[in-house]
Amino acid sequence: MTRFSSAHAIAEAIRSGKKSAVSIIQETLNTLRTQDHGIQSVTHLFADEALLQAQKIDAMRQAGQTLPPLAGVPFGVKDLFDIAGHVTTAGSVVLRNMPPAQKDAAIVQRLKVAGAIPVATLNMDEFAYGFATVNAHYGTTHNPHDLARMAGGSSGGSAAAVAAGFLPFALGSDTNGSIRIPASLCGVWGIKPTFGRLPRAGAYPFSASLDVVGSFASSLDDLITTFYVMDGSTPAPEPAADTLRISRLGGWFASNLAPALVAALDRVCASLQTTSTVELPEVASARAASFLITAAEGGNLHLPRLCKQAAEYDPATRDRLIAGALLPSSTYLQAQRFRNWFREKIHELFQKTDVLIAPAVMGEAPLLDQPTVMVDGKPVSARANLGLFTQPLSLPGLPVLCLPLKNTGSLPLGLQLVAAPGQEAALFSVARALKKSGLAGCVSLPEKEMA
Amino acid sequence: MTRFSSAHAIAEAIRSGKKSAVSIIQETLNTLRTQDHGIQSVTHLFADEALLQAQKIDAMRQAGQTLPPLAGVPFGVKDLFDIAGHVTTAGSVVLRNMPPAQKDAAIVQRLKVAGAIPVATLNMDEFAYGFATVNAHYGTTHNPHDLARMAGGSSGGSAAAVAAGFLPFALGSDTNGSIRIPASLCGVWGIKPTFGRLPRAGAYPFSASLDVVGSFASSLDDLITTFYVMDGSTPAPEPAADTLRISRLGGWFASNLAPALVAALDRVCASLQTTSTVELPEVASARAASFLITAAEGGNLHLPRLCKQAAEYDPATRDRLIAGALLPSSTYLQAQRFRNWFREKIHELFQKTDVLIAPAVMGEAPLLDQPTVMVDGKPVSARANLGLFTQPLSLPGLPVLCLPLKNTGSLPLGLQLVAAPGQEAALFSVARALKKSGLAGCVSLPEKEMA
Repeated sequence: MTRFSSAHAIAEAIRSGKKSAVSIIQETLNTLRTQDHGIQSVTHLFADEALLQAQKIDAMRQAGQTLPPLAGVPFGVKDLFDIAGHVTTAGSVVLRNMPPAQKDAAIVQRLKVAGAIPVATLNMDEFAYGFATVNAHYGTTHNPHDLARMAGGSSGGSAAAVAAGFLPFALGSDTNGSIRIPASLCGVWGIKPTFGRLPRAGAYPFSASLDVVGSFASSLDDLITTFYVMDGSTPAPEPAADTLRISRLGGWFASNLAPALVAALDRVCASLQTTSTVELPEVASARAASFLITAAEGGNLHLPRLCKQAAEYDPATRDRLIAGALLPSSTYLQAQRFRNWFREKIHELFQKTDVLIAPAVMGEAPLLDQPTVMVDGKPVSARANLGLFTQPLSLPGLPVLCLPLKNTGSLPLGLQLVAAPGQEAALFSVARALKKSGLAGCVSLPEKEMA
Repeated sequence: MTRFSSAHAIAEAIRSGKKSAVSIIQETLNTLRTQDHGIQSVTHLFADEALLQAQKIDAMRQAGQTLPPLAGVPFGVKDLFDIAGHVTTAGSVVLRNMPPAQKDAAIVQRLKVAGAIPVATLNMDEFAYGFATVNAHYGTTHNPHDLARMAGGSSGGSAAAVAAGFLPFALGSDTNGSIRIPASLCGVWGIKPTFGRLPRAGAYPFSASLDVVGSFASSLDDLITTFYVMDGSTPAPEPAADTLRISRLGGWFASNLAPALVAALDRVCASLQTTSTVELPEVASARAASFLITAAEGGNLHLPRLCKQAAEYDPATRDRLIAGALLPSSTYLQAQRFRNWFREKIHELFQKTDVLIAPAVMGEAPLLDQPTVMVDGKPVSARANLGLFTQPLSLPGLPVLCLPLKNTGSLPLGLQLVAAPGQEAALFSVARALKKSGLAGCVSLPEKEMA
């Protein structure tokens, strides 16, 4: 398999008989076994099950049956999705003695019905609580573009495996930015769908009122195709990009940006002929509310286990979960009340605009041994601050497409395209326009990293 | 106006010209001014506005215009409903410097459109936090059936004013039992509609996820008529009582009952030919969850004022609100998670039954100077325990009609008729059957209390 073979190309090669599904899966497993050493994106391979599924697809083809659209396409899942017969560990060792999952997670089921084959679980921050994919149990996932840098998190293994070309797509989850941040730092396409749109059944929870499941892909077409498979719906008609009212997010979203990112934003807006800038109100409070709700809901979820197994948690996760469980209820309720107000303001904003453009992260991936980002002129913890631009958009549950920028320098930079709830099709339209204009697309790895 | 003149009778007397609306309102105001001394149900009279509204109705009649259905019918509102031009005090002095309400509360508006005339605000526990209507600022409301006894709360003024025959109906609110407990102790009809069914706009909040507005009436017909006016809907067809699957609630709801109440429950079930008994699961947890959610949401609501004006709160309210604000978020979230589980179980139960019968309170009204009730053989605080049977039914948001029993002794006893969400019409049907059989109806006051 060539690096960045798309799901479409793989499915077509199998359908036409150029390649067997078994050979695709064998190549993929071999790549994951031999090429992941420096990156550490994989935590477990489903070799036997994947080959068995591939054999069935090859048998179907030999029997002259019509193959489903993603037949034989390998994919990976963040380590929090149930795969039948395996214990879902969610980046932790705390759950290791739990019974194996009885069935696949809902979106995995839908992808398997479409012929896709899960081949691996991918690394994450423990229990999805982090922006770094620095995991005390399963190691650190490194950015394929520069192994000295963060892949981002918490779905860092998924983003890295796609960025490295190991897999055409992978599943992730996003509570405060856990798809958008690694997509941006690794230079791949990512989607955090509308809150509540995709079924979360079989995805280990974190924050019930914020968690969203989604995916990464190395091609925009694959991102869109797999989105509709996961959604169980027919692709919606896409409004033409030049009929959409597109605005750039100013204020909070225009500060703390790397110069290359500002220049790229300018080019993107010029290409879309976007001249209007809008601001969201009380963004700092929106970010704080997202932090607080996550801490409280995560703390509530983990409190019974923390009472018994605190020592087994990743220290970086444990202390925040305990603190979250102890937050006063009044603080949690105030955050939810603010959220209602903020949603109303966002609703008003989308009366006047269709798509918002914002940065995903302030700049390129931080160095693993110097994990800071600059905020208001000061170096602050990357782990705590990479969500500066993603968290405020998590709170109202908006769909966000994370788009890799081209030609911005040696390391990837990403943007967020944001729409009103349920309006993913508008995001796809704008993303296609930016891809067509050459401004967006999966960023090539430097030659030295190539196998 | 004769005691227990119904809203229907009053409206008919005005429509036919037997009485003017002004004379009705003058009589009512006079009664409230002269007869309420021992009961203390009233906190404020809207004499001028009420007379002005009555004059308009009389003018409409003189002009030959059709009068709306409740034209000229006086009613009272719990002191937490907005009345345009007046400061809504919610049983407190903390709000006294707030601006007057700009408009009437939503259900008051609907009743006024139907011709009814608000004449008074009625006493309550401060901020609706209590089952006693013992208020440090506005005094204690006494039970019209025995002035030495509690009226119940928090809508105690409303229940007492109706029970005393001062008003044909009155508005209340119910978070944990604040309509059902005073209705039961004062021997009047009461309804706590389905959570979310009636608009709460303009009702001072307490616990956002539990508060329900509703009413008291001295006749079942008036309760039903005013319910549909408040609901803004056409009365729904009522299923015949003998076609409904009716079950008695056992377990938790069959313990701690006064012998007269057990006997009355037996008679009611025999009359309805009900032989099945069902139990709710985890009722103690449901009650605890309702307590905790109330404390946390009430605490969140009042925390900013408590930081500034704690000394002005009723001591009985203040300490619980502060404690509620400090509850850990994990406790609140666990209560809400339990609630989801409990709702599912209740949903399953209503697949097999239509109406549940339960006691409203364990027995007759406690003495004010000995405010205890017996639970598990021990005297415990009435204030904290009168909600034993009402709180578990608050949690899932079910509609409950509180029904006054006849011929059970000298003091009133009440039952709860409970249905699935939105099925108030089933409750009305069963209540009509029990009224017809002579088992239910507003209890007469002892002669000595009559004016």
